[in-house]
Amino acid sequence: MDGMKKIKVAVLGATGMVGQRFISLLEGHPYFQMTDIAASHRSAGKRYGGAASWYLGDEMPEDVRDVVVKNIDPKLIDAEIVFSALPASVANDVEPAFAKAGFVVASNASSYRDEADVPLLIPEINPEHLDLIEVQKKNRGWDGAIITNPNCTSIVLTLSLKPLYDAFGIERLFVTSMQALSGAGYNGVPGMAIIDNVIPYIGGEEEKVESESHKILGKFKDGGITNAEFKISASCNRVFTSDGHLESVAIDLAEDADVEEVKEAFKNFKGTPQELGLPTAPDPPIILREETDRPQPRFDRMAGGGMAISVGRVRKDSIFDFKYSVLGHNTIRGAAGASILNAELFASKKL
Amino acid sequence: MDGMKKIKVAVLGATGMVGQRFISLLEGHPYFQMTDIAASHRSAGKRYGGAASWYLGDEMPEDVRDVVVKNIDPKLIDAEIVFSALPASVANDVEPAFAKAGFVVASNASSYRDEADVPLLIPEINPEHLDLIEVQKKNRGWDGAIITNPNCTSIVLTLSLKPLYDAFGIERLFVTSMQALSGAGYNGVPGMAIIDNVIPYIGGEEEKVESESHKILGKFKDGGITNAEFKISASCNRVFTSDGHLESVAIDLAEDADVEEVKEAFKNFKGTPQELGLPTAPDPPIILREETDRPQPRFDRMAGGGMAISVGRVRKDSIFDFKYSVLGHNTIRGAAGASILNAELFASKKL
Amino acid sequence: MDGMKKIKVAVLGATGMVGQRFISLLEGHPYFQMTDIAASHRSAGKRYGGAASWYLGDEMPEDVRDVVVKNIDPKLIDAEIVFSALPASVANDVEPAFAKAGFVVASNASSYRDEADVPLLIPEINPEHLDLIEVQKKNRGWDGAIITNPNCTSIVLTLSLKPLYDAFGIERLFVTSMQALSGAGYNGVPGMAIIDNVIPYIGGEEEKVESESHKILGKFKDGGITNAEFKISASCNRVFTSDGHLESVAIDLAEDADVEEVKEAFKNFKGTPQELGLPTAPDPPIILREETDRPQPRFDRMAGGGMAISVGRVRKDSIFDFKYSVLGHNTIRGAAGASILNAELFASKKL
Amino acid sequence: MDGMKKIKVAVLGATGMVGQRFISLLEGHPYFQMTDIAASHRSAGKRYGGAASWYLGDEMPEDVRDVVVKNIDPKLIDAEIVFSALPASVANDVEPAFAKAGFVVASNASSYRDEADVPLLIPEINPEHLDLIEVQKKNRGWDGAIITNPNCTSIVLTLSLKPLYDAFGIERLFVTSMQALSGAGYNGVPGMAIIDNVIPYIGGEEEKVESESHKILGKFKDGGITNAEFKISASCNRVFTSDGHLESVAIDLAEDADVEEVKEAFKNFKGTPQELGLPTAPDPPIILREETDRPQPRFDRMAGGGMAISVGRVRKDSIFDFKYSVLGHNTIRGAAGASILNAELFASKKL
Repeated sequence: MDGMKKIKVAVLGATGMVGQRFISLLEGHPYFQMTDIAASHRSAGKRYGGAASWYLGDEMPEDVRDVVVKNIDPKLIDAEIVFSALPASVANDVEPAFAKAGFVVASNASSYRDEADVPLLIPEINPEHLDLIEVQKKNRGWDGAIITNPNCTSIVLTLSLKPLYDAFGIERLFVTSMQALSGAGYNGVPGMAIIDNVIPYIGGEEEKVESESHKILGKFKDGGITNAEFKISASCNRVFTSDGHLESVAIDLAEDADVEEVKEAFKNFKGTPQELGLPTAPDPPIILREETDRPQPRFDRMAGGGMAISVGRVRKDSIFDFKYSVLGHNTIRGAAGASILNAELFASKKL
Repeated sequence: MDGMKKIKVAVLGATGMVGQRFISLLEGHPYFQMTDIAASHRSAGKRYGGAASWYLGDEMPEDVRDVVVKNIDPKLIDAEIVFSALPASVANDVEPAFAKAGFVVASNASSYRDEADVPLLIPEINPEHLDLIEVQKKNRGWDGAIITNPNCTSIVLTLSLKPLYDAFGIERLFVTSMQALSGAGYNGVPGMAIIDNVIPYIGGEEEKVESESHKILGKFKDGGITNAEFKISASCNRVFTSDGHLESVAIDLAEDADVEEVKEAFKNFKGTPQELGLPTAPDPPIILREETDRPQPRFDRMAGGGMAISVGRVRKDSIFDFKYSVLGHNTIRGAAGASILNAELFASKKL
Repeated sequence: MDGMKKIKVAVLGATGMVGQRFISLLEGHPYFQMTDIAASHRSAGKRYGGAASWYLGDEMPEDVRDVVVKNIDPKLIDAEIVFSALPASVANDVEPAFAKAGFVVASNASSYRDEADVPLLIPEINPEHLDLIEVQKKNRGWDGAIITNPNCTSIVLTLSLKPLYDAFGIERLFVTSMQALSGAGYNGVPGMAIIDNVIPYIGGEEEKVESESHKILGKFKDGGITNAEFKISASCNRVFTSDGHLESVAIDLAEDADVEEVKEAFKNFKGTPQELGLPTAPDPPIILREETDRPQPRFDRMAGGGMAISVGRVRKDSIFDFKYSVLGHNTIRGAAGASILNAELFASKKL
Repeated sequence: MDGMKKIKVAVLGATGMVGQRFISLLEGHPYFQMTDIAASHRSAGKRYGGAASWYLGDEMPEDVRDVVVKNIDPKLIDAEIVFSALPASVANDVEPAFAKAGFVVASNASSYRDEADVPLLIPEINPEHLDLIEVQKKNRGWDGAIITNPNCTSIVLTLSLKPLYDAFGIERLFVTSMQALSGAGYNGVPGMAIIDNVIPYIGGEEEKVESESHKILGKFKDGGITNAEFKISASCNRVFTSDGHLESVAIDLAEDADVEEVKEAFKNFKGTPQELGLPTAPDPPIILREETDRPQPRFDRMAGGGMAISVGRVRKDSIFDFKYSVLGHNTIRGAAGASILNAELFASKKL
């Protein structure tokens, strides 16, 4: 992109946890220039520094403090790509309105993930799904388009599945998650609910993980996605961590493999973002840990700037072929960073 | 036991977390009179109130404060039953010495759990295993005997398995645990290791859970235990809770069952301790929770005085037949309370 | 109260944290019979078991599960005393309506604590303030009356001050609190706000602690309270504990005292509730800890059933005369238990 | 230092929490080249990557992984400056041995802080204390010298005191700390001791804070330090945070000041490190927060790369003149970073 003009981008729903991650990750981005910030009526009209309580560990970037937050209205936004950190209930109506008005919507919302002509994109896994955009535009008569990223738990899981799927095939997998508080939004889990506690239930999460993974690993063919075929079962728990979803995975592969081959598959994995050198792409995307007790949320969530996943405890199992633990940052790799990487792939194809 | 003389008991290894639970649970016990407290050389000779930092939420019982702690030596102990909260490295030598000297050792240590002639007893599951004592005495020429209780995670798990095993048979099961800090002993997990973190590994735990369950659910026949046959895989994690192991279980049954039948099996389960009305027996032993998000450690660990387990989220699965979550108090039901219930069963048989 | 009919009581605002403590503490109460439960429109008409998510460690008492929750309306409530766990915004209008209608309102709300004719009662400290009721009734033409208990932090603090005030007088005191999450209500502090964190601010708390203590330790004279005179400064912090406010206190006494005299004053303190043997009165009300590192929230909050405060680290200071740490359970001694003890004192005077 | 050769430095006690902070902060340092790593006999002879469990959030720097750890022996170490993260019991003997052998020891240990000829240095506060080195060398006949930094809690506190001391003088101050787990070392506080808890005692801490601050703010005169004169009282508590000591301070100034003047003093403060542009010097060293509820450990500890302190809630008080809260990173600003800044000042003077 040297010497090229940056692409104008805006963030919709910029005051929440994921919105703030967008703001933070877009600061100084080599492709994108943030030109607008939009949020709900409560925040619109205020300066961003006053509208948002900054939740991240570092400081709010200086240059967004005085930006006046706009209403979420396509007519008010000056941008080519909009990043959506909107709740599904709002995204339902807003995202199509933006797409219709010619924007590319890179969305973290769950609203359109299941639509047949909407890419559920993870650039390391299914970059070719981006071709659905043309189908989508034609189907819907839109000048713009919606590109979605999966649920945070799904992203971390499927990134770890991709090298195994390619090398050996997957027959069945069983995943038990231990998910961080930030996944529920800043106000999602009261301190009193989680102190000295684990909550063995996250509404709708198991269903999302089970359904999304088939589409993510599916093939683009004849203008649509043919889902991958394997059995999957997910059990989701909320634990007392701030960021970083840890997942305990058991898997049956289609072909024989030994532990070393599985480890090699993890270790050697690269995808399109690494080949293209996309700015947000971690390299390597999967970090293989050989210690007995890793990955751990506090120590491994920021690997690769929060964009790499960490895999450890790869071992044979007595019921499944293999077991391992995988961890990824749920609001970076699992949300804002995912959408930005999607937009980078889109931008790189276009340029 | 009305009008009968209480049985003299002692606690070995009385200053640690499990030792303190023994002291606490034996206070005012209707069968047992605590006559001696023994601990390591560091504590021996001191008053218990000075030797032990009391870790439990309530106060140290008044009447043990001034008891002088003895060395762990059969010649010094005046009791019929000794409860062992010793670490395995100490129990290896000490427990046989006590058994040889005529004591019944009700042990929470892992040292002799795997021995063919040592009962791995859970009174609700395998009360008939107590008959191994006669075999053991004969084999070893002991006047006393060793009775063990399983590992904390195994106890919580197998208690939930028993009604299913009896009603439908078990083919395979997969368990992912989220275990409390107290399971590692008071000093076992540094605060710095677990703050904002999960540790996906507990040394030796997965192996114990996998091996113990077959013996626990085995049949006593021809003077020995015939192990139960099913496949089992365990993945163990340490989370930030003080007490209460939460386990996410998936299971294939030998016979068809629907969700309601499985729930009924949990709900209607009673064992020998409930029939005999043993003092420490919870009634019911299994509490079935119908809420979407229970059991939870902070809210459910003290069910039945810490002796009942709580089962929830019973549901069909796409890979296994059923999934559910189960929780139990790891230092009461999973340790000291387990040994005491074992001793109560022993005492009730003898009387 | 032997052989006497129990007094009918009701709980207003019964579904929140303090409301649940009322329900729990009133179960099997020797003086009081709970005849009605009232809560907001959202809960009214439902059975209590369905309206309230039970937050306490033990189970919801069986006999309240099926009680139908009523609207908060004096005409609907059959009781002599009503316990108010209402938020101040609701209590503002509701409590006078109940008092006017002839009910005695034992309130945990802050709405009327500062009114000159409303007792801010702690039975161990100022039982004679109850005589304000007659003044209040006359002033306001009410058949009933409002009796309030102080803010949770104030109660724990002033209970520790009382023996010093009586024995030596108080000139100035400085308190820094480390307060539990439950003080903000179940949903008051998000897990994400408090994980690996301390919040050095609690809205309005410092002002309450500073102003209430003068009235609490004041004298009833000529139909009103003459405030105690001493300087007080409070700094309030929110820490990651579930229950139990810990306060670090420094104090200048009016008269000379040595450490042993101060300790004796704490240790020997008894108040009217202890003399009358009121059912909820802890005995002793102040527990003096001599260990170097106590009191601690997890270990000491349930002392005296949650109604005793624990004082420790009593020592000379280089700026003030003495320093000490004090701890009490904020939703028992500091809220629901306080109101119930107030009602017990009222009932005992009346009978 | 452009074009100059870097100074060779070594780290003593390199495997613990503070040792690791040294390693991390020295990576790529513009003045210093780490030439040796030394640790206890247990680690000596191993590669650093195998000897140390890396506790920090980011990864162990690549280039130290394969460095072989040496014994702590002046004869084995090739360096001009050694950074000491040794426990006091070891530092007692080792640090003089190194100083005698010609090394400059920049020490975080408490062993020699109180010695009259040893600088207790905070470069923003007392850079002229460095002149004690010459006195020390002469007194002791050493070729090298020992330079110490204060206790972590003292550093954070006195940095906030310095601008007030210079502008208005200080008469008395009262500080209540809420300190992070890392201050006790990685294994210092068991998870079971601190879950749902606060510990109102830290052995020796209050005494250190009270005594060190007088020397730190003292004047170098006639070859020695004349201590500052003011009264100070400290109460220290351990809370559940990983890093970042929060301190609640109340202060009487010698001269009149209003809140705005105090705030200006904090905001405008600069010291010698800022003037010299030392590499580790934060600029500004004190960040004034105007929000009602800051500073908070999780959000503010990494301000200025962990080297700035954050001050907030500056307000008038009813007993003291002013109150405020101050926070700083205890293992960066309060330990390893402090020693490094001291060494930078030393190096800059020498060059």
